Amino acid sequence: MADHSDTSSKSSGAHSKRMWGGRFQEATDELVQEFNASIDIDRHMAFEDIDGSIAHATMLAETGILTDEEKQTIIDGLEAIRADIAAGNFTWRVDLEDVHMNIERALTERVGAVGGKLHTARSRNDQVATDFRLYMRKQSDDLQALLLRFCGVLVDTAERHLDVIMPGYTHLQVAQPILFSHHLLAYVEMFQRDASRLADARERLNVSPLGAGALAGTTFNIDRQRTADLLGFAEVAHNSLDAVSDRDFALEFLSAASIAMMHLSRFSEELILWSSQEFSFVTLPDSHTTGSSIMPQKKNPDVCELVRGQTGRVYGNLMGLLTVMKGLPLTYNKDMQEDKEGAIDSANTLRVALLLYIDMIPKMIIHSERTYEAAGRAFSNATDFADYLVRRGLPFREAHEVVGQLVARCLDAGKDLQDLSLAEMRDVSARIDEDVYEALALQTVVNTRNSYGGTGKAQVEKQLERLKQLLATS
Amino acid sequence: MADHSDTSSKSSGAHSKRMWGGRFQEATDELVQEFNASIDIDRHMAFEDIDGSIAHATMLAETGILTDEEKQTIIDGLEAIRADIAAGNFTWRVDLEDVHMNIERALTERVGAVGGKLHTARSRNDQVATDFRLYMRKQSDDLQALLLRFCGVLVDTAERHLDVIMPGYTHLQVAQPILFSHHLLAYVEMFQRDASRLADARERLNVSPLGAGALAGTTFNIDRQRTADLLGFAEVAHNSLDAVSDRDFALEFLSAASIAMMHLSRFSEELILWSSQEFSFVTLPDSHTTGSSIMPQKKNPDVCELVRGQTGRVYGNLMGLLTVMKGLPLTYNKDMQEDKEGAIDSANTLRVALLLYIDMIPKMIIHSERTYEAAGRAFSNATDFADYLVRRGLPFREAHEVVGQLVARCLDAGKDLQDLSLAEMRDVSARIDEDVYEALALQTVVNTRNSYGGTGKAQVEKQLERLKQLLATS
Amino acid sequence: MADHSDTSSKSSGAHSKRMWGGRFQEATDELVQEFNASIDIDRHMAFEDIDGSIAHATMLAETGILTDEEKQTIIDGLEAIRADIAAGNFTWRVDLEDVHMNIERALTERVGAVGGKLHTARSRNDQVATDFRLYMRKQSDDLQALLLRFCGVLVDTAERHLDVIMPGYTHLQVAQPILFSHHLLAYVEMFQRDASRLADARERLNVSPLGAGALAGTTFNIDRQRTADLLGFAEVAHNSLDAVSDRDFALEFLSAASIAMMHLSRFSEELILWSSQEFSFVTLPDSHTTGSSIMPQKKNPDVCELVRGQTGRVYGNLMGLLTVMKGLPLTYNKDMQEDKEGAIDSANTLRVALLLYIDMIPKMIIHSERTYEAAGRAFSNATDFADYLVRRGLPFREAHEVVGQLVARCLDAGKDLQDLSLAEMRDVSARIDEDVYEALALQTVVNTRNSYGGTGKAQVEKQLERLKQLLATS
Amino acid sequence: MADHSDTSSKSSGAHSKRMWGGRFQEATDELVQEFNASIDIDRHMAFEDIDGSIAHATMLAETGILTDEEKQTIIDGLEAIRADIAAGNFTWRVDLEDVHMNIERALTERVGAVGGKLHTARSRNDQVATDFRLYMRKQSDDLQALLLRFCGVLVDTAERHLDVIMPGYTHLQVAQPILFSHHLLAYVEMFQRDASRLADARERLNVSPLGAGALAGTTFNIDRQRTADLLGFAEVAHNSLDAVSDRDFALEFLSAASIAMMHLSRFSEELILWSSQEFSFVTLPDSHTTGSSIMPQKKNPDVCELVRGQTGRVYGNLMGLLTVMKGLPLTYNKDMQEDKEGAIDSANTLRVALLLYIDMIPKMIIHSERTYEAAGRAFSNATDFADYLVRRGLPFREAHEVVGQLVARCLDAGKDLQDLSLAEMRDVSARIDEDVYEALALQTVVNTRNSYGGTGKAQVEKQLERLKQLLATS
Repeated sequence: MADHSDTSSKSSGAHSKRMWGGRFQEATDELVQEFNASIDIDRHMAFEDIDGSIAHATMLAETGILTDEEKQTIIDGLEAIRADIAAGNFTWRVDLEDVHMNIERALTERVGAVGGKLHTARSRNDQVATDFRLYMRKQSDDLQALLLRFCGVLVDTAERHLDVIMPGYTHLQVAQPILFSHHLLAYVEMFQRDASRLADARERLNVSPLGAGALAGTTFNIDRQRTADLLGFAEVAHNSLDAVSDRDFALEFLSAASIAMMHLSRFSEELILWSSQEFSFVTLPDSHTTGSSIMPQKKNPDVCELVRGQTGRVYGNLMGLLTVMKGLPLTYNKDMQEDKEGAIDSANTLRVALLLYIDMIPKMIIHSERTYEAAGRAFSNATDFADYLVRRGLPFREAHEVVGQLVARCLDAGKDLQDLSLAEMRDVSARIDEDVYEALALQTVVNTRNSYGGTGKAQVEKQLERLKQLLATS
Repeated sequence: MADHSDTSSKSSGAHSKRMWGGRFQEATDELVQEFNASIDIDRHMAFEDIDGSIAHATMLAETGILTDEEKQTIIDGLEAIRADIAAGNFTWRVDLEDVHMNIERALTERVGAVGGKLHTARSRNDQVATDFRLYMRKQSDDLQALLLRFCGVLVDTAERHLDVIMPGYTHLQVAQPILFSHHLLAYVEMFQRDASRLADARERLNVSPLGAGALAGTTFNIDRQRTADLLGFAEVAHNSLDAVSDRDFALEFLSAASIAMMHLSRFSEELILWSSQEFSFVTLPDSHTTGSSIMPQKKNPDVCELVRGQTGRVYGNLMGLLTVMKGLPLTYNKDMQEDKEGAIDSANTLRVALLLYIDMIPKMIIHSERTYEAAGRAFSNATDFADYLVRRGLPFREAHEVVGQLVARCLDAGKDLQDLSLAEMRDVSARIDEDVYEALALQTVVNTRNSYGGTGKAQVEKQLERLKQLLATS
Repeated sequence: MADHSDTSSKSSGAHSKRMWGGRFQEATDELVQEFNASIDIDRHMAFEDIDGSIAHATMLAETGILTDEEKQTIIDGLEAIRADIAAGNFTWRVDLEDVHMNIERALTERVGAVGGKLHTARSRNDQVATDFRLYMRKQSDDLQALLLRFCGVLVDTAERHLDVIMPGYTHLQVAQPILFSHHLLAYVEMFQRDASRLADARERLNVSPLGAGALAGTTFNIDRQRTADLLGFAEVAHNSLDAVSDRDFALEFLSAASIAMMHLSRFSEELILWSSQEFSFVTLPDSHTTGSSIMPQKKNPDVCELVRGQTGRVYGNLMGLLTVMKGLPLTYNKDMQEDKEGAIDSANTLRVALLLYIDMIPKMIIHSERTYEAAGRAFSNATDFADYLVRRGLPFREAHEVVGQLVARCLDAGKDLQDLSLAEMRDVSARIDEDVYEALALQTVVNTRNSYGGTGKAQVEKQLERLKQLLATS
Repeated sequence: MADHSDTSSKSSGAHSKRMWGGRFQEATDELVQEFNASIDIDRHMAFEDIDGSIAHATMLAETGILTDEEKQTIIDGLEAIRADIAAGNFTWRVDLEDVHMNIERALTERVGAVGGKLHTARSRNDQVATDFRLYMRKQSDDLQALLLRFCGVLVDTAERHLDVIMPGYTHLQVAQPILFSHHLLAYVEMFQRDASRLADARERLNVSPLGAGALAGTTFNIDRQRTADLLGFAEVAHNSLDAVSDRDFALEFLSAASIAMMHLSRFSEELILWSSQEFSFVTLPDSHTTGSSIMPQKKNPDVCELVRGQTGRVYGNLMGLLTVMKGLPLTYNKDMQEDKEGAIDSANTLRVALLLYIDMIPKMIIHSERTYEAAGRAFSNATDFADYLVRRGLPFREAHEVVGQLVARCLDAGKDLQDLSLAEMRDVSARIDEDVYEALALQTVVNTRNSYGGTGKAQVEKQLERLKQLLATS
């Protein structure tokens, strides 16, 4: 990659004459050649490389640098190469080091010397930056769409299970009962933010470096706006030095991917907990779990665990590129060749995780009687008992104390609050009446949390409507 | 912090009776109390806490939950506390654990039992999320402004030194001569992107969690839109579970700060290189360098080194919070208390670095004769020599080879290309004429790179105009 | 810190004349001075600084560079300063930037000009490296001792609960029943490794840089072995450049601390799971949990959560210093001043976490009837059923299939394997006899896992003995 | 991988009947199967897997669980498979998911049902832990040897260039002149420490998990010490739960690799600086540099840049696995499958970097006249001038001031200290005499730094001797 990198050795015949051999007297060391080569990674961007070259050739013809015939020859050649690659008929050569040189060489072999003219007014520094941006734009768009598809799946699931009550936790301790749907919609909020982060990052990503040359621009009278338009870039990079050395777009993508994986790791953790014997809230489908070759009873939530585990690699990719870029002087440095592998890996990791969950969640069985029972235990209505007392005129802090004492008694007796007799309750506070049982009922407790964004059914239905409309238009 | 955290010990008198003591039989361990306390960190958010409480009280009065008189008493008390804190007259107590309880206690001591009503329809979980968002919004806005101020300083400096030519580097090897101003403007592009990232992050940050309660909303008939309006939030968080457990805004800030520090580390690296004896491109001001107690001659670029070094802590803060959040089940978990220290530290680090450079750059002396000389060495015009031959009809690849050979000869003779006689040149290619010297002249080489965004003076002037207008309106 | 750092401004009177002012014409900027100052951090190393100075003075006298009287005056002065610091009577000045200059200034004020002779044949570069190593050696030794103390607590707890059976998990699915003690001893293995890592790191840490000078050694005829001996260093650093720029010892410490925190995060996760309502395996002591100001029933495992969360900062500190050191040319660079804060913070974090758990674990209540019940559910004896069939002559893969079918039937019927009648079992395989129930009994299942290191009681007892002896001698 | 992972689908014929199918009713999703598969990574450990199986079979025969004939059949089959793999004649199947199942299947196909007996008293959980440890032991040993080989190369180079003087830097400012050899030997210290870290880590790595079973040990009467001996493990893991879930050895390796890469990044940074036009200290060999397809003059230090850049991936791998392991409950979780890719990648990265430098450094040309000139500039003898004055009776702080003033004069006059006339010097201090010029001479300045570990030639020679002996015996 980049301005320095055609390392094909002089000795290996006509085809591999190094393009920069003039001042060199010795061949490149073979291990060095392999070490420098980026073809294993950047060939993922072959189609983007071809797209960029076609746009460049088109512009060169329009500005009179190529003839129309030359342009057409080049474009036909490039399209033929694209077809070869798509068909698996293209041989990538490590000695040609990178995707640019592999395609340029193939082009020259196919159309002759005119192929060499394609490199006019272009350097590998701006070329690779263009390819990488085009590639990441596609990745980013695909992931945005997948995130929203997953939101749709969660919304559907929430709608289908609107009556399921489960415990809401803080500190993994039962706190207050909530609707299962409300819980799912919390994740919809997260994944929507993830999508919007990618959308924002796209603005900074969708900028054309093409025409920045090796670093300082070119002496040819090119039209950078034209190539940008042809490639769908919204803007032209304003500074050539920055254009060839900016990798912010990759870092921003890696950050957004890390945050999204963090959300997936939280969701995965919950699925793992919920499918444990102790929780038994859900059963994951056979299709997304595996067994043990030793233990015949095992049904393991592998997918969830592996998604959670792969958070590590996505974080690591971010840390990796941040490290690479730290303290690098302008402009292009070979260190930057390390930019793509992690970005591609993070995009893949996130995509597969989303695909798996999009498929799995609708097949998951929710044990609503079990979640209901768990939601009703552990004094999850204690806050409401206190609120009841407040409505009866007790200051909140005193009400809290009263309920705390009742909880302590229940713990001794192995009971829940609603299991206490009225007499037992009134023993602690005379303000308590028969209607307390209604106030402590699970449905009441859930549905009276009717503030905006709360877990009350009316609120959750309102959010479902809002989200369905929002997703329908995005 | 958070729903569990009033750890004031029973033994320390009426005021410090634990608010959650009812079900507990033993006192909290002292080391535990200290360990749990967040007051050293979250007291940075004291004013935001007061702002949030005033908004909450105002809304509670408007919805009839408080009387107007109660509201006014509470607000007067809070404003008095704010004045105390501002004046340094407020004693923070570790045994009250966090900023919320410290202020609530002070309020109750000052205005009596009515102070306790402020906590109606609010939990520390939504309260701390509100405070943190308000605080980070301010940090983020300040940093945006500072980044743009720094851009202004760079633009000014670029304008003042428009005739300085320096070497442009790739691989830290001299590549092509560029304008010093062009180099500075590359950084303007970077810091502008940093500012725009903060602006985008602000959209997701500027959302009100207030009213989400402990996790599930509240049974009180509150008006969340009203508190959001009063606090300048653009939106109300739509899901209560998400509202209390979302820390994306901190992660997104930490990511943006990391990328900005990365840019500063690159800039710092260059200043360190440039002020080395070997480069001698610039002299940093005495005010921003220090000497050695041992070596009388030393003048060290400490500020630049320390800025570069502090990139580590900003990256570390990002990795820290990503780690914290990985795999946490919903909703609030105490782990999240680790969210603030790193965010505050990263904001401070970035702010001080920007302030230092805003002050230092205008005082830096550029040695333009030295940069000019360096730009003219090392065959920085070799590309132009090849382009010259192309214009004379030689295919680029051949032209490259010819110049490569001339470079090799020059290396042997210790000369630069322009030092060769016409005869020596023509010995290699007969296409070369007297006008080659004009083509190889440094001014020519720079100014003919006149493609959009290139280093040619006309292009740089165009960018200066664009940026001056842009900064004037932002 | 380091060779450049006496930034006391000329203008602030006699005391603050900069020691390196000769070549400088302007004062240091005030914000720069504050930015450069490290005193907030390195004053933690005040006693180590004094120890190093006393050793240095002693050696200087022995080699004739100081007189005995001068040496004694200096040492008396330093001891007086140590007493002041210990008593809280020492005023640290930011304008003197670092701990070295603060103490040197105080010494000169106290004993006069002779104090200045202490800096002979020493630079702040080797001085700070010495202080930091002494400090980290102490931290490391303390943490080693604490880790082993914690191992002792776990061994005691394991011994006291030798009859508690709990589920062993893979994938958080019940796998096979194990002894609770066996589970605890797994952590003893981990924390022992953590201690041994610190012990190994100590070898590389316990090396004296003193006498390396600013970077290249000194022209004075000093005895580096002597100062090393006086300070308890096992070796003298062999290369002066390396001596002032090596921070491996801090990185290695940060790595070891990260791995130890990872172990603590796993342990914490388990305690949080175990104390959830769904698991209900343990009750954490009131002293180490807290309640909620809103929800009267809550008892939150804050300590465990915060320990888990603080894993983030320890990882972040490691990443921070790795970032700082990446790509720094030799020798000392100001960036390295960033080395201490993270190391101190990680040491503190680990220490407090260990202290809390050392105190908490013995107070934790284990609900053995509940863990027993959980261990007996979920087909945790399925492997043993298969093994039973193998002993009856069935190939393992067929046995596995047979038990898999029985599990499927049990799932339909809501039974466990041992609940099936012999007839039901024989319906699937005629090889099954009455003695299968004995083979499926929980005690059998546990105790027949009697391979070395297995969960059988005899094995666990053997390990308890081994560990008690090992800890007694370490 | 691990206990759950035979995901071969029922529908694809006899060979791919899932070993854990009994309780499952639906096939595994295809994407899930691919997602779960680890074969792309763990087939790197095929030979270790075979070694482990042979040791296990040997022990099973010795303890009577297999007959000798069965054992021999199995071993012959495994050796045949090893030969196939080595010859590239083995087809890895993704549907068999991991290296263990691929080899087990191949064995059964080759030797019949007896192959299935190999899995007696073993689980994939202990098997994969064994393979991974064997693999990492080899990596670690190879890297240790390479690090020491590189030390040898540096020592040789240092010995060959013992008279080269160069500037020693602090803050990248010329500080004091040093021997080039002294500089190289600083790196020898670092890489030796890196090797010793790997050696220490080996102690904790070289422990046998084999026989720990799925998690709790096995009911078979196996001899774990015997398999450990056969595989060259120094110890048997004492706790089965820990044995299957410990990944410390990978983390410790990743930490050690990160520190080593940090050292390589510093070395690379220096080579990049030194080969820049501004420094011009060295010329890197053509074999290890590349040119530019655009700029005919370019000769780029790609290898050095890429090594520096790959520090990012090695740090990222460490961060990745730390993240994976954070907060995982015992014992094996599928997340842990993420352990190998990063470890293998870091080992490879470090290995290739070392190989490249081992080859490159002897071919590097050092421009000793240029380094000499640079060492003599920039007042690198200022400290010695001050020391001279101290020997003439001036207190050091005053001497420092005097020299500072002389430096300021020199800066105005564009001179170095030794260029001043005696009269000019005496104008500032009458203590200066003719012999000052001898004191300021570069050779004097270097060689009088004769303290242990200093840059004086005698000291450097002493270190060369020490290191040659040390490397000869290691």
